[in-house]
Amino acid sequence: MIFQNLVKGAVVAAFLASSVGAVDNGLAITPQMGWDNWNSFGCDVSETLLLQTAQLIVDYGLKDLGYHYVILDDCWSVGRNASNNNSIIPDPKKFPNGMAAVADHLHSLGLGFGMYSDAGKYTCGGYAGSLGYETVDAKTFAEWGVDYLKYDNCYNMGQAGNQQISSARYEVMGNALNATGRPILYSLCNWGEDYPWNWGSTIANSWRISGDVYDSWDQPDSRCPCDGPDAWNCGLPGFHCSVTNIINKASFIVSKAQPGAWNDLDMLEVGNGAMTDAEYVAHFSMWAAAKSPLILGNDLRKVPAKDLAILSNAAVIAVNQDPAGSSAARRWMYSTTSSDVYGGNAIQMWSGSLQSTTGGTYSDMVVVLINGANESMVLNATLADIFIDNGASGTAPQVKMSWEVRDLWANRMSESEAQAIIDATSAAPNATNATTVGSGRYNATQTSYAQGLKNNDTLLLGNVTSTVGPSGTVTATVDSHGAAMFRLRALPTGMKRDEL
Amino acid sequence: MIFQNLVKGAVVAAFLASSVGAVDNGLAITPQMGWDNWNSFGCDVSETLLLQTAQLIVDYGLKDLGYHYVILDDCWSVGRNASNNNSIIPDPKKFPNGMAAVADHLHSLGLGFGMYSDAGKYTCGGYAGSLGYETVDAKTFAEWGVDYLKYDNCYNMGQAGNQQISSARYEVMGNALNATGRPILYSLCNWGEDYPWNWGSTIANSWRISGDVYDSWDQPDSRCPCDGPDAWNCGLPGFHCSVTNIINKASFIVSKAQPGAWNDLDMLEVGNGAMTDAEYVAHFSMWAAAKSPLILGNDLRKVPAKDLAILSNAAVIAVNQDPAGSSAARRWMYSTTSSDVYGGNAIQMWSGSLQSTTGGTYSDMVVVLINGANESMVLNATLADIFIDNGASGTAPQVKMSWEVRDLWANRMSESEAQAIIDATSAAPNATNATTVGSGRYNATQTSYAQGLKNNDTLLLGNVTSTVGPSGTVTATVDSHGAAMFRLRALPTGMKRDEL
Amino acid sequence: MIFQNLVKGAVVAAFLASSVGAVDNGLAITPQMGWDNWNSFGCDVSETLLLQTAQLIVDYGLKDLGYHYVILDDCWSVGRNASNNNSIIPDPKKFPNGMAAVADHLHSLGLGFGMYSDAGKYTCGGYAGSLGYETVDAKTFAEWGVDYLKYDNCYNMGQAGNQQISSARYEVMGNALNATGRPILYSLCNWGEDYPWNWGSTIANSWRISGDVYDSWDQPDSRCPCDGPDAWNCGLPGFHCSVTNIINKASFIVSKAQPGAWNDLDMLEVGNGAMTDAEYVAHFSMWAAAKSPLILGNDLRKVPAKDLAILSNAAVIAVNQDPAGSSAARRWMYSTTSSDVYGGNAIQMWSGSLQSTTGGTYSDMVVVLINGANESMVLNATLADIFIDNGASGTAPQVKMSWEVRDLWANRMSESEAQAIIDATSAAPNATNATTVGSGRYNATQTSYAQGLKNNDTLLLGNVTSTVGPSGTVTATVDSHGAAMFRLRALPTGMKRDEL
Amino acid sequence: MIFQNLVKGAVVAAFLASSVGAVDNGLAITPQMGWDNWNSFGCDVSETLLLQTAQLIVDYGLKDLGYHYVILDDCWSVGRNASNNNSIIPDPKKFPNGMAAVADHLHSLGLGFGMYSDAGKYTCGGYAGSLGYETVDAKTFAEWGVDYLKYDNCYNMGQAGNQQISSARYEVMGNALNATGRPILYSLCNWGEDYPWNWGSTIANSWRISGDVYDSWDQPDSRCPCDGPDAWNCGLPGFHCSVTNIINKASFIVSKAQPGAWNDLDMLEVGNGAMTDAEYVAHFSMWAAAKSPLILGNDLRKVPAKDLAILSNAAVIAVNQDPAGSSAARRWMYSTTSSDVYGGNAIQMWSGSLQSTTGGTYSDMVVVLINGANESMVLNATLADIFIDNGASGTAPQVKMSWEVRDLWANRMSESEAQAIIDATSAAPNATNATTVGSGRYNATQTSYAQGLKNNDTLLLGNVTSTVGPSGTVTATVDSHGAAMFRLRALPTGMKRDEL
Repeated sequence: MIFQNLVKGAVVAAFLASSVGAVDNGLAITPQMGWDNWNSFGCDVSETLLLQTAQLIVDYGLKDLGYHYVILDDCWSVGRNASNNNSIIPDPKKFPNGMAAVADHLHSLGLGFGMYSDAGKYTCGGYAGSLGYETVDAKTFAEWGVDYLKYDNCYNMGQAGNQQISSARYEVMGNALNATGRPILYSLCNWGEDYPWNWGSTIANSWRISGDVYDSWDQPDSRCPCDGPDAWNCGLPGFHCSVTNIINKASFIVSKAQPGAWNDLDMLEVGNGAMTDAEYVAHFSMWAAAKSPLILGNDLRKVPAKDLAILSNAAVIAVNQDPAGSSAARRWMYSTTSSDVYGGNAIQMWSGSLQSTTGGTYSDMVVVLINGANESMVLNATLADIFIDNGASGTAPQVKMSWEVRDLWANRMSESEAQAIIDATSAAPNATNATTVGSGRYNATQTSYAQGLKNNDTLLLGNVTSTVGPSGTVTATVDSHGAAMFRLRALPTGMKRDEL
Repeated sequence: MIFQNLVKGAVVAAFLASSVGAVDNGLAITPQMGWDNWNSFGCDVSETLLLQTAQLIVDYGLKDLGYHYVILDDCWSVGRNASNNNSIIPDPKKFPNGMAAVADHLHSLGLGFGMYSDAGKYTCGGYAGSLGYETVDAKTFAEWGVDYLKYDNCYNMGQAGNQQISSARYEVMGNALNATGRPILYSLCNWGEDYPWNWGSTIANSWRISGDVYDSWDQPDSRCPCDGPDAWNCGLPGFHCSVTNIINKASFIVSKAQPGAWNDLDMLEVGNGAMTDAEYVAHFSMWAAAKSPLILGNDLRKVPAKDLAILSNAAVIAVNQDPAGSSAARRWMYSTTSSDVYGGNAIQMWSGSLQSTTGGTYSDMVVVLINGANESMVLNATLADIFIDNGASGTAPQVKMSWEVRDLWANRMSESEAQAIIDATSAAPNATNATTVGSGRYNATQTSYAQGLKNNDTLLLGNVTSTVGPSGTVTATVDSHGAAMFRLRALPTGMKRDEL
Repeated sequence: MIFQNLVKGAVVAAFLASSVGAVDNGLAITPQMGWDNWNSFGCDVSETLLLQTAQLIVDYGLKDLGYHYVILDDCWSVGRNASNNNSIIPDPKKFPNGMAAVADHLHSLGLGFGMYSDAGKYTCGGYAGSLGYETVDAKTFAEWGVDYLKYDNCYNMGQAGNQQISSARYEVMGNALNATGRPILYSLCNWGEDYPWNWGSTIANSWRISGDVYDSWDQPDSRCPCDGPDAWNCGLPGFHCSVTNIINKASFIVSKAQPGAWNDLDMLEVGNGAMTDAEYVAHFSMWAAAKSPLILGNDLRKVPAKDLAILSNAAVIAVNQDPAGSSAARRWMYSTTSSDVYGGNAIQMWSGSLQSTTGGTYSDMVVVLINGANESMVLNATLADIFIDNGASGTAPQVKMSWEVRDLWANRMSESEAQAIIDATSAAPNATNATTVGSGRYNATQTSYAQGLKNNDTLLLGNVTSTVGPSGTVTATVDSHGAAMFRLRALPTGMKRDEL
Repeated sequence: MIFQNLVKGAVVAAFLASSVGAVDNGLAITPQMGWDNWNSFGCDVSETLLLQTAQLIVDYGLKDLGYHYVILDDCWSVGRNASNNNSIIPDPKKFPNGMAAVADHLHSLGLGFGMYSDAGKYTCGGYAGSLGYETVDAKTFAEWGVDYLKYDNCYNMGQAGNQQISSARYEVMGNALNATGRPILYSLCNWGEDYPWNWGSTIANSWRISGDVYDSWDQPDSRCPCDGPDAWNCGLPGFHCSVTNIINKASFIVSKAQPGAWNDLDMLEVGNGAMTDAEYVAHFSMWAAAKSPLILGNDLRKVPAKDLAILSNAAVIAVNQDPAGSSAARRWMYSTTSSDVYGGNAIQMWSGSLQSTTGGTYSDMVVVLINGANESMVLNATLADIFIDNGASGTAPQVKMSWEVRDLWANRMSESEAQAIIDATSAAPNATNATTVGSGRYNATQTSYAQGLKNNDTLLLGNVTSTVGPSGTVTATVDSHGAAMFRLRALPTGMKRDEL
C-alpha cells in the first residue's frame, strides 16, 4: 500500500506533513534551496567565489526568495592530518582563512553553509573521501559550522549492488551527522543507484535520482543511458543527462517525495546559456513541481537578466515550497509527429495537489503542460486527468466543479526589471538593495511561503487567466520545448455556470 | 521441475491439497475473503467504521458468501509505550474502546479481525512500523484477538534487494505470529519485490504481486511502470496499477498459488465507481479465477445495487474457493485493431482446472475470455487451448470429449433484487435479514463451497448455456473491457455426438 | 578470456578433455543418458513402474544405445524418521521393498539408479526437501545404492538472488555426496536461476538452464517468459517452455558445456505425442548437438514405433556422446515471412566441432539446420559460417577444404523395424532380445561411442549424401519445424576439385 | 557528480593527472601497451614463443613505439607444489628454464613480463586458479620478476553477483600484489561483470568491459549477447564479441578511464586476418581513442606489412598515450539505409580532449568518424558536437574558434616500408635494426609521447589536411566499416576568417 490522497476531495496534506516517515532532523520540511558551485565552476573553488556569490544571492533578492544554502562542492581539501585524528585539511590556498571563517561570513549574511564529501575512498575529483572517516568528518563539519552535506558516490570500493549495501554505507554518515548534535541537512548523491527513494527518507533529507544533469533540453548522450517508459531504474547513472531524461526518470517515483525527504533532480542549469528561454522555463517549472531541491548552478556574477527573472518567479517557487509537500505526477504523455533533431516529441501533462488557498475543502492544483515538439502547440488537459488521483475516469468530485486558472508565469519579472536589479547591484555592490529595487518581489524571509499562501498573496498565486467549468479543459499554447504552468483554485460551488 | 497437473485427464487436485509445501498454520486453504478499509477510506479509520461495515457484511449476506475478515488498514496507532515493553498504542480517538473490543464485536458477528502493520521503521502512512518490534507486536495482536495480519513494506531501512534479504525480514514476523499460538493469517504486502512468490509460501498465506491497484481498467500511470510480455518482475512496484496491468503481472506466476499460499492481486475496486459494469465483472472474474484473496475495497454504506450483485455472485466465488486450489492460467493473448484511448486492445483467454462436480474422472474447467478491445467482440476458445495443460496441440483426452458450458454470470442477481437487499437492510438495520431477502442466494456458512459443489448446487454451477463437442470451440460475445466466464463440466463420454 | 578452439584447424579436444575445470567425480564425461518418469507420470511413481520401464530400456535396445540411468522423480517419500537421524522414509505403498531393492534390481540389469530431491524445505510436489538434511540424505542415498541425484529448487526459503547465495546452497549437497565416497552424478535443477552455468561446473555434473520443457515446438506460455535475442537470463524460469524457447536460451551459453559438466536442456518430450515427427526429430537433434543430457521422458510401455526410431538413432547420439565434448553453437538466425500461428518463423544454423574420425588433422563438424517456418524450406549453410570459430569471415583453413556431408538422419530405423522390436518385446517380455532384433543397431555397451567413432562405424557416421568443396555451401530441404543434421568429414586435401 | 572538463575552454587535464582516485602503484599512467599470446596461440605457449616474439617486438620497432609488456596467457602451469607452500609449478616442457629466466631475458630486452592467472578455482583453460592462493602466487610472481598480471574470472565458485562480492574477490589479489613490494600492473579480466568500472580503479590498473573480442567487425554471435542503446551492462559477457559490439559497450562508460585506471576493450585483432584493412584501421583508431590498453594479439612472426603499418602509427598511439588521460566519447550515432549482411549501418562520431600541443589555452581534440554502412560515405562532424563537453548547443568557446584538422592516418607507413622492416628483420634477425630501417618512425623509448607532443613532433601530430572555421564542420569521406581520425589544434584566435 502506498500512501496517497485517498479521501476524495478532502485535504489530507496537513496529516501528511505531521506524521511522515522521514528522517527526524527537522530540516527540509520543504525542498532545500540554495546555490552550488559545481555546474559553473567545477573544481575552481575558493573563499572568494563563495563569499562573492553569497553577497550576490543577498543583493539580487535571491536570499529573500528562499535560496539559503551556499554549497561548496568538490576539490576543497588537501588531505588528512594524521596527527589530528585524521581530520580533513582544507586547501589553504583556496581557503586561506579556513572553513569556519566561510561559515561565519555566510551565517552573518543569514545564509547556510553547505559542504561536500563522498561515501568512498576518494571524491569524484580524486580528493580524500569520507568512507571510513565519517565520524571525524562529521565532527569537523559541525565544528566549522556546516549546515548541509552533499554526499557523493565515487570510488565506493564496491560497497554497492543492492539496497542493503548502499543504504548501510550512507547510513553511517547520517548517524555521524546526527551524533554531532548540529542540525545538518543530509543530501545523498548516489545518482539513484540501488533505489535510494526506498531507503533514503529514513536517513537523509534528499537523494539524487539520476546521473548528473547537463545544460541541454534533450540531447542524448551515451554516458547517460536509460530512458523511456520502463527506465525506472538505471544501473549506470552516468552524467550528461538531459532535462527531459531526468524528468522521465522522476515520473516513476514522484510519490517518494514528502516533507523532509525529497527526490533530487540535480542542480539547476538555468542561466548557464545552452538552453532557450522556453527550455529554462520548462526546466525550472518541472523542478519546482516535482519538489526537487532548487539549487542554483550558474555563475551569479554574470547572470543574464532573463534568467534572473526565471529564478526569481515566486509563484513557481511557491509551488515548490508548498506546505503540503506533495509532488506533481505525470498524468499522460504522448508523441507528436513534430520531432526535433534528437527525436524529442513528447507532450506531457503533470498535475499535483497543493495546499488550499481558498480556505475551502479542496486543494489547489498545479498543472504543467510540457511541449517537447519542434513547434508551438496548443495543449489541453481535462479536469478528469488533472484530478485522477481523486477518482479515476472523471469520477473525482473536483471534475464537477469550476476552477480559476492562474498562469504562474504571467507575472514573470520583465527582463528590464531584472536588468535593473543587476545594474543596481553592480552600481552599489554589497548594498543589499534587492528589497528596494523590485518592490513587487516576494520576500520569504519576512513572510514564509506558507504564510504568503494563506494570505493569498498575488505574488504567489499568479494571475487568473481563465476559468474552467465542470468537466472542462485547461488549454494553453505552449512554445516548442517549453511549459505552461497553472495553479487551479476552486471556485465557490454555488456559482452558476454562466458566472464562470 | 514445477508441479502441475501431469497425469493426463486425471484429477490430481486432491493430492495437491493434502501435501502442499505451504506455511502450516492451517489457514487460507482457499483464498481469504473479507473487507479492508484502505481503498475507500485510507487513513479515515475508526471503530465505528469497522463495526458499521461489519454489520453490513452480515446484513447484505456477504458474510454468508464467505467474506470473513474485517481488516483495519494503516493509521490506527499513536506510538509505542516505552513503559510497557514498547507495545504499540492504538489511537484512543479512533478506537476509544481499544482493539480487543473491536475484535470481540467482530467475533460475535462470526467475523475475523484483520490488522495492519509494516516490516519497516514506519508504516506507509508514517505511523510506527514493526521492524525490530515483531515479537511484541505479534503478542499484542494475539492478545487483542487478531486473526489476520496485512504486513506492508514501506520504510524498510534498505533491507531489500534480493530474495534472501527480503524473505529474512518477513520471516521474523511470521515466526513471531506462530510463536503466539494463535492462528493468524499472514498476508505479505511487499508488492512483489524480490520474488515473494518464490519464498512467500513457506512463511505466509499470501503475498502481493504488484503495486497497489486503482480503480481503472487500463489507464497507465507512470507511477506503476512495468507491463508487457516480459514484465514478470518489477523493481519499482509503485501504485495506481490498473486491473489489466495486474492481470498481466499475475499471468507469469499463476502456478505459485496453492492451498494455504496465494498470489494476492490486491483488494477489489468493485463498487468504487470509476469502472464500467463490464470492467467490474471482468475484474471480479479474474481475481476469482486467479485465486486471489477477495478483499472488498468499497464503502458498503453506499454500495450500488449492481456492484453488490457482482460481489454476491456465488458461482464466481465458487471458482475462487474451489477445493482444488489451482489458479487459472493465461492460454493466449493477442491484439486487435480496436484500441481504446490508452492503447488497450488485448484479447486473452484463461482457463484452469476445478474440482470435478460430475463425480467422474475429469476435472471441471473454468474458462475466462477477456475483451480488451474498444468494442464488443465475438471470442472463441478451442478445447485444445483450454486443456493445453493436459496435453499440448490438442492431444488432451478432454479435447475428444463433450462438455456442458455453464455461464457463471448468467444467474447474476438482478439489480432490483440487490436493491431490495440494500433497502431491506436500510429499513431494518442490524436485522441480519440477508438470508430472508434473496432466498436464492448461496450461504457458505451453512454449506461450504466444497460441499455445495459436491451437492451440485446450481447456485454454484451456473446455467448450462450450450455444449461443446469434441475438438469444439467455446464462443461468447463479450462486451468491451468485459469478460465471459464459464464452467465446463464433462458430459458422459458415452453420449453420441448428436445428443450434444 | 573464454576457452575456445583457438589453434586454427587443429584438434584441441584432447587437451580439453584432460584438463577441464569440472567437478572431479569422474562422471558424465559425456552427457548422461537415461529415463526419468516425470514428463509422463508425474507423481504416479512406484517400484513397478521403474522396474517395468527398466526392463523395456533393456529389451528395446535403449540400454545398449547408452540410456543408463533410471531416474525416480518427485513424490516418493512419506516424511522423516525422527528416531533415525531424521532420515527420509520412502513411501511403503509405492516402494514396498524399499529403495535398495530397486537399486539392486537396476544394477542387476546393468543400469544406474537416479534419485530426486530438492534444495529446499519441500520438494516441488510438497514432500520433504533436503535443505538442512543434506548430510543424512546423501548418506541414505549412498547406502541405497543411488548413482545419480536430480536436485530441484522449490521452496528454497529465500536462499536465492545472486550467484553466491544459490551456489552456496547447492554446494552443500555436492560436498555431502562427495563425502559418501560413492560416485553419484550430481544434476542441478535450479532452472537457470542465478547463472548456474558460471558456478555449476565446479560442484556438479550438469545444471538445468531454463524452466521445464513441455511437449510443444513453439507455443508460447505466459508461465515461461523470456525469449528473444537478449533473453540470456530469466529471473522467472517458469515452466511450459517450448522446445524453441529452450533452444534460444541455450544459444547464449553453449560454451559452458564441457566433459563432466553440461548444460541441461531438460528431459526429452519425444514420444509424448503432441509434436509432429519433424518436430521431434529437430528436438532430439538439438538436444544431442547442444550436449544436453539425453533423458527419456516418455512412457516406454506405449512408445510409438516412429519415436523409438528417433530415440534409437545412434548417429545422432554419437554426436551427443562425442569424446571432444564440445557443444554446437548457433551461427546465425533469421526470420522468414512464413509464420505459424504462434509467430514461429526462425531459421537457424548451428555447428560444432567433433572429434576427427578421419585420423587427419581436422575435426569432424556437426551441422544442424532448423526450419521454424510454416512450410518446407531449402536452407543453406556456407563453410565460412560453419567454421567461423576457426576463423571469421571465411578465413578458416577448413573453408578451403572439401568435406563429406553425411546425413545423420538418413539411416533412421524404419517404422516397421522399430515396430518389430516393440512387437518382439511384447511377445517375449524380459527376453532382452533387442540385440537379436535389429542387428544393424549400435551397441554402445559393447563398443563405446568413442571407440565406434575411431572404428569409423557407419552406424555412427551416417551416410554420405554429398560433398562440399572449397568455399561451398551445405544445402538441405527441411520440413516445417524440422531439422537437417549432418556430419562433415574432411576429404583428403590432395583431392582435385573435380573429384569432389 | 561525475568529474568532467567543466571549466569551459580551460585545460583541466593537468589537474586530473595529479589527483586521480586510482590505485596508487604508479603504473599505467597512460594505457599499458604490449603483446599477449592468447588471440593467436591460445594454449600453445612456450618460452620459445615468448622470446621469439619479444625479439620481433624489438626488431620491428614496436618496443620503441611503446609496446612494452610481453604477456603469457593461460595454460602455462602443471599444478601446485604441496611441499613448497602450494606454490604454482610452471610447465617444465613449455618453460624448461623456468619463469625467472623468461623474465630476465625480457628485462634484458627492455621489456616487461606479463603473467596470467584467474580469480577462481581453475583458469579458463582448466589449470590451477589463484582463488585461495593469492598470497603465495603474488609472492611467486614477484620472485620471478613478473611486471604485470592479467587476472581472469572463470570458475569463480559463485563469488559473483554484485559489486561487493566481485570487488572483494579481486581486491584480495590486489592487496597480495601490493604486499610483494614489486610494482606489478594489475589488469582485471572479469569481462565487465558487476560493474568493474565502479570499483576497479581503486584496486587495479585496468578492467575488461566485455566478453572476449573476436576477429570480426560486426558479425553477431549468440555467445556475446547484449547490444544497442541500453546494453550498458551485460550479465552474460560471453565471447566472440565483435569490434562494434565492444565499441558500443564502451560508449557508456568512457568517463571511467583515467590515468592509472583504464577501460580495457580487450586485445587487438589487427593482423589476425579476418577483417578488412578499413576495419582494422577503425578498430585500432577506436581502441586508441577510448584509451584502451593496446595489447597486440597477432602472430608477429607472420605479420602482414599493412598490419604492421597500422600498429606502428605513432600519431594514433600518441592519442592513446596522451598525458591528459581522458577518453574520447561518442557524441552521436545514427543509422543509414545502407546495411551490411549483419544489419550493421551505424554512423558514429566520437571526440575527446587531448593535451594542448599549441601552448595555448585550448586542448587539442581527437575526432573519430566511424562508417558502419555498407558503402563509402561522406561524414560530417560539427564543432558544436565535437566540443559539446565544453558547452551544449554550440555554446562552447571552441566553436567560435578556428582549428587545424590533422589527419592521423595520413602518414601511415607505406606497405613497402613496412615490408622492408619485416624483410630486414628476416635478413638479420635479432639485429634490433628497427631504428635504422624506417628512420621516420617515432621512438618513444628515447622521447616519451608526452615530450614528443610538447616538441610538436610531426610524427605525432599528423598532417594538416584542412582547417575548420567558427561553427564549422569537419568532413571526411570514410570507407565502409572504416574510420577517419583527426587531431584538431587551435589556430590563433586573432586569425581572420579568410586566413583559414
